[in-house]
Amino acid sequence: MARADEMKLFMEPRSIAAIGVSRRTGPGSFNLLENLLGYGYEGRLFPVNPNASEILGVKTYPHVGALPEAVDLALISLPRSLVSAAVTDCVAKGIKAVIIITQGFADADDEEGKQLQRDIVLIAAGGGTRILGPNTFGVANARLKMSTSYIRISMEPVAVGTISQTGGTFVGLNDIKLAGKAVDVGDACDVNVVDCLEYFEQDDQTRVIVVHTEGMPDAREFLRVVRRVALKKPVLTLKTGRTPQSARAVQSHTGALAGSDRLWDTALRQAGVVRVGDIEELADAIRAFLTLPAPAGNGIGLTTYTGGFGIIASDACGKYGMDLVEFAEPTLRGLRALAPEWMGVGNPFDIWPGVSILGKPRTEVERQGLRHVLSDPGVDAALMVLGAYDPRLGEELVPMAREAALMFPAKPLVFFAYGPHFAEVRRSLETAGTTLVFPSPERAARALMHLRERAAYLACRARRDGA
Amino acid sequence: MARADEMKLFMEPRSIAAIGVSRRTGPGSFNLLENLLGYGYEGRLFPVNPNASEILGVKTYPHVGALPEAVDLALISLPRSLVSAAVTDCVAKGIKAVIIITQGFADADDEEGKQLQRDIVLIAAGGGTRILGPNTFGVANARLKMSTSYIRISMEPVAVGTISQTGGTFVGLNDIKLAGKAVDVGDACDVNVVDCLEYFEQDDQTRVIVVHTEGMPDAREFLRVVRRVALKKPVLTLKTGRTPQSARAVQSHTGALAGSDRLWDTALRQAGVVRVGDIEELADAIRAFLTLPAPAGNGIGLTTYTGGFGIIASDACGKYGMDLVEFAEPTLRGLRALAPEWMGVGNPFDIWPGVSILGKPRTEVERQGLRHVLSDPGVDAALMVLGAYDPRLGEELVPMAREAALMFPAKPLVFFAYGPHFAEVRRSLETAGTTLVFPSPERAARALMHLRERAAYLACRARRDGA
Repeated sequence: MARADEMKLFMEPRSIAAIGVSRRTGPGSFNLLENLLGYGYEGRLFPVNPNASEILGVKTYPHVGALPEAVDLALISLPRSLVSAAVTDCVAKGIKAVIIITQGFADADDEEGKQLQRDIVLIAAGGGTRILGPNTFGVANARLKMSTSYIRISMEPVAVGTISQTGGTFVGLNDIKLAGKAVDVGDACDVNVVDCLEYFEQDDQTRVIVVHTEGMPDAREFLRVVRRVALKKPVLTLKTGRTPQSARAVQSHTGALAGSDRLWDTALRQAGVVRVGDIEELADAIRAFLTLPAPAGNGIGLTTYTGGFGIIASDACGKYGMDLVEFAEPTLRGLRALAPEWMGVGNPFDIWPGVSILGKPRTEVERQGLRHVLSDPGVDAALMVLGAYDPRLGEELVPMAREAALMFPAKPLVFFAYGPHFAEVRRSLETAGTTLVFPSPERAARALMHLRERAAYLACRARRDGA
Repeated sequence: MARADEMKLFMEPRSIAAIGVSRRTGPGSFNLLENLLGYGYEGRLFPVNPNASEILGVKTYPHVGALPEAVDLALISLPRSLVSAAVTDCVAKGIKAVIIITQGFADADDEEGKQLQRDIVLIAAGGGTRILGPNTFGVANARLKMSTSYIRISMEPVAVGTISQTGGTFVGLNDIKLAGKAVDVGDACDVNVVDCLEYFEQDDQTRVIVVHTEGMPDAREFLRVVRRVALKKPVLTLKTGRTPQSARAVQSHTGALAGSDRLWDTALRQAGVVRVGDIEELADAIRAFLTLPAPAGNGIGLTTYTGGFGIIASDACGKYGMDLVEFAEPTLRGLRALAPEWMGVGNPFDIWPGVSILGKPRTEVERQGLRHVLSDPGVDAALMVLGAYDPRLGEELVPMAREAALMFPAKPLVFFAYGPHFAEVRRSLETAGTTLVFPSPERAARALMHLRERAAYLACRARRDGA
């Protein structure tokens, strides 16, 4: 079976056996069966527990051998001393995909855990069974309403495939639910990042791939595959264990070697991977790749509510390599009609004097100003600065954002909003579906930079591979 | 009159004349009188408008000469050609503080604006009247429920004094309302950053001073004064116009020269100023200085919900110079009692195996874990990583946060929370009043770094000045 097909058993199971599921339910019980029923998973469920005949109304089996079918996927959450026997049972039953949720193997401090892991690898490999874990939240697939995480998570069918070395990412980041489809490779005794990468490469429901890794034993194989995958879909990577102190912590977490951070940086860049430095940058970049077109160049046009914040935004653009375009004469002519005569019009364009002095309606100055800016031949992307002093600002600007996307489909439009009504303004403005609102100009400019860098990389690879 | 006393007329006026206030009211009218009445300002208000006998029920005067008293503060919002005559009237009336809200002076593109500004400076200086602006939102004082901003803002009596070159800061940042007390110096034709600094230096309602500047004509005077003020109160500075492209924009905004960014950095550091790089960092630092004690050293203790996020947090601490302490034996002994036997216990401390494997209540493992960590002699600050998978997490941890602040008053405690319920968890946990919750570990570590660096600076100055 091809790797991607083996992975389908994990990611798209039609039937799941939950081995070691407890009779205890409710808050604090971390009951996998209760979670799966709660999400509304529609596949067949087979709890395995020798001390119960049913749990939560579902018929329960005393041991794996008693199951009526070789399920697509078995979950093992048993004390670690019982795990290898359960894996043996699964192999005997003909189950080809097993998730070991239990902790205390390569991640343990003792030799016993490491030995148990080696035993399991041998049993499974001999039987042609793939193992995910141990020490894992397992998988999530929002489209199937299925997750094996023992913490009840919130899922949304975003087109993101996450490959992670921690279940923490299943919980999601602040601005995005990562559990569109997700795998926690845990101690990665068998299924590894490359297996998952090949699954998401061919998965039509995944447009953006996220890799969180602390390091891996076979980085060469990963880089070889990711270099291919990155041509098809953006692969965003959070490589952690960057400092000597955290590299030490990596060893006790999953037993991996973090490796030189500088070398990782170079290798990932050459393979076409978008490397992000932290989880906020990751969430922003995911949202950008899901929502915005890639700018054709580094030219940016700014509009602002105050000169001071225009300069703050201009600093941010400079920091991330976006150049403030000198507007062409037709652009300037259009903008001058929106401003008092004495005002020096340029980039950034301050919309406010046209409102407060000429008395023009604010949304009109914004809409026309944006249209002039995006019409400029040097402008590849627009950043609008908004003072979120009023919660209604966002919904007022939705038509403008939609119009801009229709008229200039290749030029991304982003906003930086500040002020007490940031959250409302963002929520309503992003319903346009064509734009993003950021809480700092740095984050807006950095997201544009990632879009731009990936586009430049793809163009460069196309030239080189074509030559 | 001392500078700080002159500034009191601007910041704490008992009476205000609003010259050029319009009869137009309601949304989009930017009516200063309507705003002041709306806030609930309790000083005496005198609108000046030759075409009305009352506006919004307030008796209106035809010209400045007709006012029944020399008010503490006059606001001028007239077309720029009428401003110098109004200033002349104010001087004749004996008004000692005037805010020129009108734009189009040094900030204009034409020679006329620059000449008008020179005229005004002469008139006012000759009459002993101080001018704030032109091109300014003026002032805000949340304790007086007073702001001269033509945009209606939200104020909160936070102990922050903001000196800014843009009214944008009056609107506030996302995590904090900056308009506790605030001044927008605008084109700074007379009242400048140093005047404001001396006011906030002596103001008992101000504990943290924020300076946003694009550059200033007399940086030497500023640095001389700020070096003194920084010994008494933290002065956080956002110096913008950092890149060549934004330095150009500075010139057309307020006519200031941005100056070499690297030299500013060195000079500010030597003067004891906390320099922040962007507005998110500014908001975080303000909140930290308002809420947390300064750590006595760089030692940090981490607790986490997953190994992976512990490493992410550890990377962040490394980036901002916070060292992960090797816990002392008594700390380790305490933590081992909260974890399965096989678990290698260290820093970061993973609280979750004690919950999911030993079945201990989560809040108990967190509370006891934190107490052990803070008891460690090498730990100067604690960072707890929380997966915000449940909105109630925050309120559950409030007693723990309060207890930690009572038992370890000199050791700051901060949280990094991720997940879909970040906002609720932050809101409720911060009601403890003794801790802050950040959306990334970088931002948590960076805030601690600022506290630490200021404490180290003060210790160093004390040693040097004492020697």
